Amino acid sequence: MALPSSIVVREVGARDGLQAEAPITVEQRLELIDALLVAGVTHIEVAAFVSPKAVPAMADAEIVVAGLGCPEGVVRAALVPNRRGAEMALAAGVDELTVTISASAVYNERNVRMTIDDSIDSIAATCALAADVAVPVDAVVSCAFGSPYEGDIVPEFVSLLAARLREVGCAAITLADTTGMCTPRRLDAVLAVTGTDIGLHLHETRGTGLVNAYAGLLAGVTRFDTSVGGLGGSPFAAGAAGNLATEELVALCDDLGIATGIGIDALIEAALLAEQLLGHAVPSRVAHAGPRSRRA
Amino acid sequence: MALPSSIVVREVGARDGLQAEAPITVEQRLELIDALLVAGVTHIEVAAFVSPKAVPAMADAEIVVAGLGCPEGVVRAALVPNRRGAEMALAAGVDELTVTISASAVYNERNVRMTIDDSIDSIAATCALAADVAVPVDAVVSCAFGSPYEGDIVPEFVSLLAARLREVGCAAITLADTTGMCTPRRLDAVLAVTGTDIGLHLHETRGTGLVNAYAGLLAGVTRFDTSVGGLGGSPFAAGAAGNLATEELVALCDDLGIATGIGIDALIEAALLAEQLLGHAVPSRVAHAGPRSRRA
Repeated sequence: MALPSSIVVREVGARDGLQAEAPITVEQRLELIDALLVAGVTHIEVAAFVSPKAVPAMADAEIVVAGLGCPEGVVRAALVPNRRGAEMALAAGVDELTVTISASAVYNERNVRMTIDDSIDSIAATCALAADVAVPVDAVVSCAFGSPYEGDIVPEFVSLLAARLREVGCAAITLADTTGMCTPRRLDAVLAVTGTDIGLHLHETRGTGLVNAYAGLLAGVTRFDTSVGGLGGSPFAAGAAGNLATEELVALCDDLGIATGIGIDALIEAALLAEQLLGHAVPSRVAHAGPRSRRA
Repeated sequence: MALPSSIVVREVGARDGLQAEAPITVEQRLELIDALLVAGVTHIEVAAFVSPKAVPAMADAEIVVAGLGCPEGVVRAALVPNRRGAEMALAAGVDELTVTISASAVYNERNVRMTIDDSIDSIAATCALAADVAVPVDAVVSCAFGSPYEGDIVPEFVSLLAARLREVGCAAITLADTTGMCTPRRLDAVLAVTGTDIGLHLHETRGTGLVNAYAGLLAGVTRFDTSVGGLGGSPFAAGAAGNLATEELVALCDDLGIATGIGIDALIEAALLAEQLLGHAVPSRVAHAGPRSRRA
């Protein structure tokens, strides 16, 4: 088992993490993003260009992007749900677009009221727009390891969907464990057909974020979406849970000798800042216990 | 990587899980134990023969053991801190004694006010008593993967300590990650010298319980201490955390095809019973989200 020497962490706390929270101000969102950049984050999802009525916490995306400016060496990603969102995000000048589609037809229908084919068409339109300004598009495939509606998703379907998304112009594919159905065995089964040139976007619905990340590292995956503090979903409602916490992945990588470029102490400070801004505890354990080097 | 075909789960919720909680009644403790046996648990720590002044939640250990009787095929373990506890537990008729000692001299001193050598002598006395009635003693070595006082513990010291404990009569050794300092890499380093004929007792202080269990399974470990619901420590105080949740390990093993003999649905019922008896949520995610086979 050859572990990778380094990985890229795409920090999604400012988007996936904050979107289910009560809105905080643009200044507070920028403060959190800044703390993450100080910690060494170089790839970060900063906003979603979605309807502020549907997702109040993501309002004023263009103001967030403008306020952030263009920090050197930082890839600023934004989620776009459709052509209009893509136009706005590109006008704002982001470096990467993320789009979503589900490997579960029922989930896709319920989440965005489109068939998978319709979602592919929509993503193709976004890719065409982005290509004009040479901005890469990353397609995040939800329910890639199972769906609460259909159960297991055939790995070959995930692989075909990924290939189709690349055909319509996606530069990268990220496989998301939206409802906590990934396991090391499922992950290995999917990677066996998709290959390891994918990102992993893991959730803690069943407490399996870190074990799946470890299985991914053992298999050779080098791109991970994580959220500061483990924010995301609705971490304090029974049965729901946030993303894998960035500091828990970084702590694991630090111990395994895998470079992330992120400093654990400054990252924990960012997680504690998130607690302060949101007014409640974050679910991350490492944020509270500290790295294993902490002494009594 | 050859995963084991089966493992033995020693359920410690009724002891390690309950000891830090506000006391519940003997009847409630027996109700929880019964729910665990119904789920298929066959090895269970049911009580601690300690001072009820020091640990009020563990009072009336002999009444718990008497109330439980001798369910067929079930190993009933009890924690004993000293000779007097051992005499009481043996008189009560338990099937296994668990004793504790720390691989960290400072932790041992602070926890039981003894040197490691003194603790070995005390364990030797317990082993002599237990041998008279052919009851096995399992020594749980705390801080085996690191100490909040000394930092990393040299794996060879853990190995020598384990050998010495076997010499004085311990039938089994369990390595405990008391303060969440185990990682897959540390675990591999320790197992390289101790061998895999040890039990693992993992905590969630840094959210690493399941990833360390997975690393243990990959290495060939077949004995695990876990706690229903993830009870243990002080799960709702910042920086502290409970044991690896039995249902999270069982869910992982179910998916990996590793037999545990425990039914996940009945086990989750036991976790939800624990919530009801204690009057607060348990930290386990699987207890709330259900197994991955659960459909929307």
